[in-house]
Amino acid sequence: MYNFASDYLEGAHPKVMEALNQTNFVQTVGYGEDEYCQKAKDKIKKILNNENVDIHFLVGGTQTNMIMISSALKDYQAVIAVDSGHINVHETGAVEFTGHKVLTKPHQEGKINCAMIEEIVSGHTDEHMVQPKMVYISQTTEYGTYYTLDELKEIYQCCQKHHLYLFIDGARLGSALVLNDAPTLQEMAMYSDAFYIGGTKMGALFGECLVIINDELKTDFRYHIKQKGAMLAKGRLLGVQFDALFEGDLYLEIGKHENECANILKEGLKKNGYSMYIESPSNQLFPIIDHETLKKIHQKYITTPMFEVDENHSCIRLVTSWATSKEVCYEFVKDLEK
Amino acid sequence: MYNFASDYLEGAHPKVMEALNQTNFVQTVGYGEDEYCQKAKDKIKKILNNENVDIHFLVGGTQTNMIMISSALKDYQAVIAVDSGHINVHETGAVEFTGHKVLTKPHQEGKINCAMIEEIVSGHTDEHMVQPKMVYISQTTEYGTYYTLDELKEIYQCCQKHHLYLFIDGARLGSALVLNDAPTLQEMAMYSDAFYIGGTKMGALFGECLVIINDELKTDFRYHIKQKGAMLAKGRLLGVQFDALFEGDLYLEIGKHENECANILKEGLKKNGYSMYIESPSNQLFPIIDHETLKKIHQKYITTPMFEVDENHSCIRLVTSWATSKEVCYEFVKDLEK
Amino acid sequence: MYNFASDYLEGAHPKVMEALNQTNFVQTVGYGEDEYCQKAKDKIKKILNNENVDIHFLVGGTQTNMIMISSALKDYQAVIAVDSGHINVHETGAVEFTGHKVLTKPHQEGKINCAMIEEIVSGHTDEHMVQPKMVYISQTTEYGTYYTLDELKEIYQCCQKHHLYLFIDGARLGSALVLNDAPTLQEMAMYSDAFYIGGTKMGALFGECLVIINDELKTDFRYHIKQKGAMLAKGRLLGVQFDALFEGDLYLEIGKHENECANILKEGLKKNGYSMYIESPSNQLFPIIDHETLKKIHQKYITTPMFEVDENHSCIRLVTSWATSKEVCYEFVKDLEK
Amino acid sequence: MYNFASDYLEGAHPKVMEALNQTNFVQTVGYGEDEYCQKAKDKIKKILNNENVDIHFLVGGTQTNMIMISSALKDYQAVIAVDSGHINVHETGAVEFTGHKVLTKPHQEGKINCAMIEEIVSGHTDEHMVQPKMVYISQTTEYGTYYTLDELKEIYQCCQKHHLYLFIDGARLGSALVLNDAPTLQEMAMYSDAFYIGGTKMGALFGECLVIINDELKTDFRYHIKQKGAMLAKGRLLGVQFDALFEGDLYLEIGKHENECANILKEGLKKNGYSMYIESPSNQLFPIIDHETLKKIHQKYITTPMFEVDENHSCIRLVTSWATSKEVCYEFVKDLEK
Repeated sequence: MYNFASDYLEGAHPKVMEALNQTNFVQTVGYGEDEYCQKAKDKIKKILNNENVDIHFLVGGTQTNMIMISSALKDYQAVIAVDSGHINVHETGAVEFTGHKVLTKPHQEGKINCAMIEEIVSGHTDEHMVQPKMVYISQTTEYGTYYTLDELKEIYQCCQKHHLYLFIDGARLGSALVLNDAPTLQEMAMYSDAFYIGGTKMGALFGECLVIINDELKTDFRYHIKQKGAMLAKGRLLGVQFDALFEGDLYLEIGKHENECANILKEGLKKNGYSMYIESPSNQLFPIIDHETLKKIHQKYITTPMFEVDENHSCIRLVTSWATSKEVCYEFVKDLEK
Repeated sequence: MYNFASDYLEGAHPKVMEALNQTNFVQTVGYGEDEYCQKAKDKIKKILNNENVDIHFLVGGTQTNMIMISSALKDYQAVIAVDSGHINVHETGAVEFTGHKVLTKPHQEGKINCAMIEEIVSGHTDEHMVQPKMVYISQTTEYGTYYTLDELKEIYQCCQKHHLYLFIDGARLGSALVLNDAPTLQEMAMYSDAFYIGGTKMGALFGECLVIINDELKTDFRYHIKQKGAMLAKGRLLGVQFDALFEGDLYLEIGKHENECANILKEGLKKNGYSMYIESPSNQLFPIIDHETLKKIHQKYITTPMFEVDENHSCIRLVTSWATSKEVCYEFVKDLEK
Repeated sequence: MYNFASDYLEGAHPKVMEALNQTNFVQTVGYGEDEYCQKAKDKIKKILNNENVDIHFLVGGTQTNMIMISSALKDYQAVIAVDSGHINVHETGAVEFTGHKVLTKPHQEGKINCAMIEEIVSGHTDEHMVQPKMVYISQTTEYGTYYTLDELKEIYQCCQKHHLYLFIDGARLGSALVLNDAPTLQEMAMYSDAFYIGGTKMGALFGECLVIINDELKTDFRYHIKQKGAMLAKGRLLGVQFDALFEGDLYLEIGKHENECANILKEGLKKNGYSMYIESPSNQLFPIIDHETLKKIHQKYITTPMFEVDENHSCIRLVTSWATSKEVCYEFVKDLEK
Repeated sequence: MYNFASDYLEGAHPKVMEALNQTNFVQTVGYGEDEYCQKAKDKIKKILNNENVDIHFLVGGTQTNMIMISSALKDYQAVIAVDSGHINVHETGAVEFTGHKVLTKPHQEGKINCAMIEEIVSGHTDEHMVQPKMVYISQTTEYGTYYTLDELKEIYQCCQKHHLYLFIDGARLGSALVLNDAPTLQEMAMYSDAFYIGGTKMGALFGECLVIINDELKTDFRYHIKQKGAMLAKGRLLGVQFDALFEGDLYLEIGKHENECANILKEGLKKNGYSMYIESPSNQLFPIIDHETLKKIHQKYITTPMFEVDENHSCIRLVTSWATSKEVCYEFVKDLEK
């Protein structure tokens, strides 16, 4: 059985494991104040061409979202997202647990736009309602789509106009970074207040790299990390991993590889007459497949069920990762052709 | 420079790293529902001689404490601890962030007893005050001391009598388990409602193994883990590590090694006329040392400053770990003799 | 200027004020444990024909909602409401502040139904999502509509089937109780787990009477009240007022009077060709009025603006109360005819 | 039976009731934005000789404390109080429910001083611990003692030096304001960041008047009030009452009357050989009385039990209020002499 269900099914990219092995016996101070974290931060700041950002390494995505959002908002403030947003659906109310409402609009191919944001803002006018203060988007989105540089700029300007922070969840950022008109890391740091560079789904054992650009969001951030149980004692593990991921072009190469693998699957599916629920250029695909074929696929492959389209067809999700081989993708296509 | 400041200064015990390397490319489902987690759970249940416990693997200690405590308590309920308790001092108010008060009494050699508990219980009588519902202790304590089996039994009976849950923080549990009259893992499962077996400070890269004995505390626990941002996507990493730590007697051997190393330091310190702030049989030592000697020590060794005893003397902390060699301990003693 | 903007614009019904004046110098114990609270509770239990309910008097509606909901839910559980629900829009995220998500569906004339509830329940299946555990409805609704006895029964059965608590916000309950096919107080206690009888908008200076039917929701409720800052020192004020409101048929008479006043307005509006945004039989009306007429109305009357229907018409809200005179309603109609 | 147990046992001072009766039928807007609230605010600002403060009327003391404290603190910040502080003992963990730790030192006659504050501040040095950010004191204290102007100045300067807000709980402020060397209202506004003028225990039916001096604490405060369920729909009731309490010298007269009544009791007790647990010049007394005498007292009077001093003696609390007559105090003394 080969598992296409997600991009966190294996351990770490060999180069990441190698770095962990090589540094295993070195003594460092704890809690992320070590030289490996420093080195990784310096590397990333250089890529961002911005010495002024604050970088924090965290363990997982839900954790990063809840800490970034709750630390930015006052008690009565809310975060805006599309209804399909990870924070709205798949984090067991983590944002609400920290006391904040998630205000939503129905997504358009996984994405939000300025009109939706403004509709929410104009509907929240006084102290009897929560006060919208942040917009949360994902790059790539829950449906594998992405924001182009122009779209990001427009949303950021919209946020600026309405005094909203813009925070980007980059759990699968590598898959977006290699797309032609998507913003680069440097551009993301220009057109957002904070974003995170995903590690867990991009070849690390675990770990997310949070970049805070807006000074207002930086104060005492380590207190927030510690209080929410998110400060790793052996924080160096995060530094070592991100140092390895950003050695050369590894992070981008992983994204490129993922997309190429996904593309093999997509082309194969299309050639064989299957349509996509949403057109995605990244490492997540959402094909609609008849139940008979699906049964055959599931004899050899695991996929994620999404929803029934009609009584004979379902939408599923296929995800490729750093560990996916092109061979297994070609094999999937060949099996499809039978 | 050799660093005696804590037991989380290196990576993982070689056998743990080996297990991570060997399983790195295996595909498993995420979020701790994989076969490695299952195997580690089965192993530990067998050691506990109790099939009925629930086991959850978490990333860190503060995280484990805050989730276990907040999930057990209703909004208006509080947890009892000594003033020096980790949850009261060194977790940045994580328990309070989840809404609960920590009720304290001054510690006695790092420990609590039934009289202290009863004083708190009898002082909280109605709805104008919080309702005490849990007692939190650590094995070993913040001062390196430990609860004997008899002491644990007494506290557990005290808790039973007053309808309080007993929860044991075992961040450094291995160091206690090998002490003569300390409770075994099996006895801990008999005389507590929940406890955790520390990994981070016991040779894992990271990870704590939470054992829930009382059925009342088990319901929907995975919801709590996810909501607090603590559910590791690649949960198998925790299973793999605890499986390795409980292969043969590794966990106990690490504890034994730590204590032996600490003992070399302690005997050397005493032989050279230094007294201990608190007498500890475990891997944390609290010697009182004159400032002149301290300056010399700090040319070669890093330690944790505790507090000034008088203008010429300070109490410091020395901690040994799985990675400490006996050689470096003997060398420390030799240096002391100069 | 006469103000039709809401039903909390005056002080208290004369009989309520009289009771407060008469008891002003009597000494009683504090915090709602006095004889007036007891008397009011006994009276209401008799009306409910249920000795087994727990009754608590609280100061305001948002407070009552947040305490009832947060006390009923575990950390990871959520409450279901229509999007127009008071807790979702007009309570500044009070429910979220206590840590819980509000799951919504678009309302149908202000109301929810079993199909909506089941769609939410079936979409929340595991620990990566919140767990729906309560349904919140209002009688009457934000749009002045109400649940018939049959509708209430159906929703309650739906909740029972899915292990959901049903909680009814009765801020304007009196206006519903006098409608023909609406449930009586006794029937509300049969087909819900908790509900509150509104005082603030029904002739009291302030105060809501929370009735808890389900034993699971009763435990230590006074701790919740006190912790959320909602336990009135002079709790007797609430007992005195509800005792007065339930002396004879006063509470129902107020509801009847409100509806009769609203009916005068409604008939007058319709006779003059104005349509209603939503057809309401209770004390809130939502007429659609052209801007020219509206300008004239606002020379003599204050109303609540709702939203623009088109560039020439707006929906407004008119509310009648115990203090509204039929004379002023007839006058409003006469003015309309000009 | 006459009840000396507290100062909230009756309704409102006749002048307060009169004002409520006189304004009962006037229509005003809701939520404290009415002309009565405005008038009361203007009056109080004039007394404070400070147009720049923000004034908010709230219903009760616990509510006021929890909202003021939680709105001022960031997630990881804590409030400092004496162990006997109302927020630490008698508010069912309301401050902790909002996420914040209360850091305490043992009280000295109910009071805190700069040395205690500095000991706490110097012990909280990094992100592994909460960050102290506010000091909470009460005027008068839980033991009936008070801060002199000099003491207040010293504490305020201490707070300024350590970047701590100073917040004063004035539940029984009137009893302090009439003492010779106690700060006046105007001086309180000079030497604190926020304080509240108690109504509930000073002759109002209910209500506390929060004065915010420091601009940093003012932003969007009404959002906090609403979110915590504390915004009274008929907010005018608070304005009407405080307007009445500050008409002429009524508020001070009530304080003076309370203290004079308490003084009659105190002199009588002392003359008859009874000592005080703590010497109090205000309306709360803490005499130590033998159990035999106590039994006799309780045939005619209700008091609050505090604690047993030895097996034959107990400390009790006697409280006088606006409603206490000097006659009943003289009678108590006469009864004591028998």
